[in-house]
Amino acid sequence: MSQTSITGRLYSIRAMGKHLTFATLRCPDREYLCVFSERLKVRAESIVRVTGETRPSTGSRAFDDEIAVESYEVVAENRTIASTRLAGQPYSKAVLPDQHVYMRLPEVRARLLAKWSAVRRIRDVLTEQRFVEVQSPRIVGRMTDGPTMKFKLDYFGRDAYLSLSNLLFHTAFVAGDFTSVFEVSPLFRADVNHSSQHLSEFLILEATAAYRSREDMMRLSEDVVRAVCEDCGGGGLPAGHLDDIPVVTYEELRKIVSRADCAPVAPGTRIKRYHAEAVATHLDRTLFWVVDMPAKHKAFFSSTRHDPATGTDVANDFRLYWREIDIVDGGERVTSPERLRERLAEQDLDPAHFGYYLDVLAGGVPPLTGLGLGIERLLAKALGIGNIRQLVPFPRYVDHFEP
Amino acid sequence: MSQTSITGRLYSIRAMGKHLTFATLRCPDREYLCVFSERLKVRAESIVRVTGETRPSTGSRAFDDEIAVESYEVVAENRTIASTRLAGQPYSKAVLPDQHVYMRLPEVRARLLAKWSAVRRIRDVLTEQRFVEVQSPRIVGRMTDGPTMKFKLDYFGRDAYLSLSNLLFHTAFVAGDFTSVFEVSPLFRADVNHSSQHLSEFLILEATAAYRSREDMMRLSEDVVRAVCEDCGGGGLPAGHLDDIPVVTYEELRKIVSRADCAPVAPGTRIKRYHAEAVATHLDRTLFWVVDMPAKHKAFFSSTRHDPATGTDVANDFRLYWREIDIVDGGERVTSPERLRERLAEQDLDPAHFGYYLDVLAGGVPPLTGLGLGIERLLAKALGIGNIRQLVPFPRYVDHFEP
Repeated sequence: MSQTSITGRLYSIRAMGKHLTFATLRCPDREYLCVFSERLKVRAESIVRVTGETRPSTGSRAFDDEIAVESYEVVAENRTIASTRLAGQPYSKAVLPDQHVYMRLPEVRARLLAKWSAVRRIRDVLTEQRFVEVQSPRIVGRMTDGPTMKFKLDYFGRDAYLSLSNLLFHTAFVAGDFTSVFEVSPLFRADVNHSSQHLSEFLILEATAAYRSREDMMRLSEDVVRAVCEDCGGGGLPAGHLDDIPVVTYEELRKIVSRADCAPVAPGTRIKRYHAEAVATHLDRTLFWVVDMPAKHKAFFSSTRHDPATGTDVANDFRLYWREIDIVDGGERVTSPERLRERLAEQDLDPAHFGYYLDVLAGGVPPLTGLGLGIERLLAKALGIGNIRQLVPFPRYVDHFEP
Repeated sequence: MSQTSITGRLYSIRAMGKHLTFATLRCPDREYLCVFSERLKVRAESIVRVTGETRPSTGSRAFDDEIAVESYEVVAENRTIASTRLAGQPYSKAVLPDQHVYMRLPEVRARLLAKWSAVRRIRDVLTEQRFVEVQSPRIVGRMTDGPTMKFKLDYFGRDAYLSLSNLLFHTAFVAGDFTSVFEVSPLFRADVNHSSQHLSEFLILEATAAYRSREDMMRLSEDVVRAVCEDCGGGGLPAGHLDDIPVVTYEELRKIVSRADCAPVAPGTRIKRYHAEAVATHLDRTLFWVVDMPAKHKAFFSSTRHDPATGTDVANDFRLYWREIDIVDGGERVTSPERLRERLAEQDLDPAHFGYYLDVLAGGVPPLTGLGLGIERLLAKALGIGNIRQLVPFPRYVDHFEP
């Protein structure tokens, strides 16, 4: 036993008659069971400094230690009605104004720590595979991959935008002889989308490598997904679902869907969530790759080829689905400036906005492949969370940017 | 000896008569000396695939290997005039349009790798000291620490801003029981400043901790600076200048400057670069701390106290100078909502913009200290680079946001 003073936040105050109160003191590294010899009149979730004898906890709950409190002082009183008791409800708009209280909930704390740990693991996996983390700008000009969905910014009186993707800069890094680069960074999309899988500001892993094939980058993606799932304790996946992830082409996917109990994928149209879900069910797998998607759905910098079987252009791409949700999207890149001009024209983009990118290609770039992996989407699946906003302490989505 | 095919970028093509050319092939992991048995007609800095016998290099330069080229193929020709030969000039606007070429220069490559390595080291130091890396939003509302210098954003038809600081969110994380948090992230300032030490978008380490004193956070800052300097090979510092870094108060600094050959620091006014330089010279030290600065110069969330000696309010703060440049700025924080309202009033800020922050404090926060460390500024000093723009591949500053 030793006499000590400890400061922390006081939870679960249970008065046991007039002369006894139990409470939990949560400190940075441990939780204490505090025993007060009075009926305590302190508001729950205040910051309190207690002094007393500590001893190993003997109670039924797994506290680190027990403190027989001799004296105490309220360091900062909780003068709001906000408390984890009120926040302990299904995630809703109601709790959003009190994010700092919401994140005290053990399950919310656990999921945020899981995400932040996953970010560290992702950086480690890429670094171990000799990728270098670079820094692309968040503020960009017109060199972005689409005319819409951008947030516009007043940049000293001129129009600038928030970045939609680092991948164009990654090509420049490769051209600068940084041949394997990645970045874990926030990106921004201004599309009006109220789905549970969209944020205006989200965290993404993007990676680009020269001299690594489409297959290499698919393996890299799998390594990242595997590391993150291990890090959060398995990701709730059936045994084997992280190994030998099946690969289906877009045309094979269309055939699978045509035999399923849902609307078909019309030739050249996009894969909807229920299509992907039907494929996962048919394959009896959680994860599966789709490759060779219609060229017209892929960003202008994607390399494509003519497919004689369908008479259409398909991309040299890859997309990883976790059941109905796409987690990874990537593909080989156009390296010829002439071909890039054609792709820009196909997508009705103004080549004047992409002068720098055309210069980069004209200077000679090696064959290269890139990918993006949505970190909130992956974590939501690995942790079994339905709405990715729950993985962001201060989420930004349509109309929401405060606090 | 073994026959192999290798792809890379071809530099330093030296024709030695009609039937012999030497060139350097730079690959992801190594550099080869290529020996062609012809006068090579390939443009320098093209991507070339060579096939031939490799053998350990016997030449005077330290190549990894030598290749006796039997055949070769130009994979992607350099069709621009941009080359490292042209870029190999003092950093200037002239080379900015070709950042991808500029970063091929060995000294530029080395400094970018040093910066990216430092970012990893910084994250490791904080993680070892039990800080958790959190994620604050880049898009914010009016809850920012000043009315000016913000980039304004069109957020679905409403005004939002790019974040000036994560520190207000860090207080919310501490209130959420994440008691030691940090973030390495880009921040944004819209001030018109043409100095060599300013960027509109810069990388910063910000850290906030409950239950750690001002002295603890000063030691943490020193650990980070020491780790970064070690990582880049000493930072060119005289022996001992990273140990026992002297601490002077603002009033002591004023006295030191009053005896130096420069304009004095008038009571309560800001420390200018030449003042700091004079102090470094007087102390004969590269690094020194300044503490107890005038309260009115510090952000509204800074904790302050009355100083009877001068009859003014001073901050419980700390600032690390590397000669004339401030690298770290931090201090203890206001935790009482009443005191925060006073500080907001002192700085003419509208309390309505800080309603969430006042709520966070009203919920009870423990004593806490925060800091910010400018990563480009530190690296510029550690690497002996005059202009911090040289540490950013695609720098953003007044009027510059492309490519």
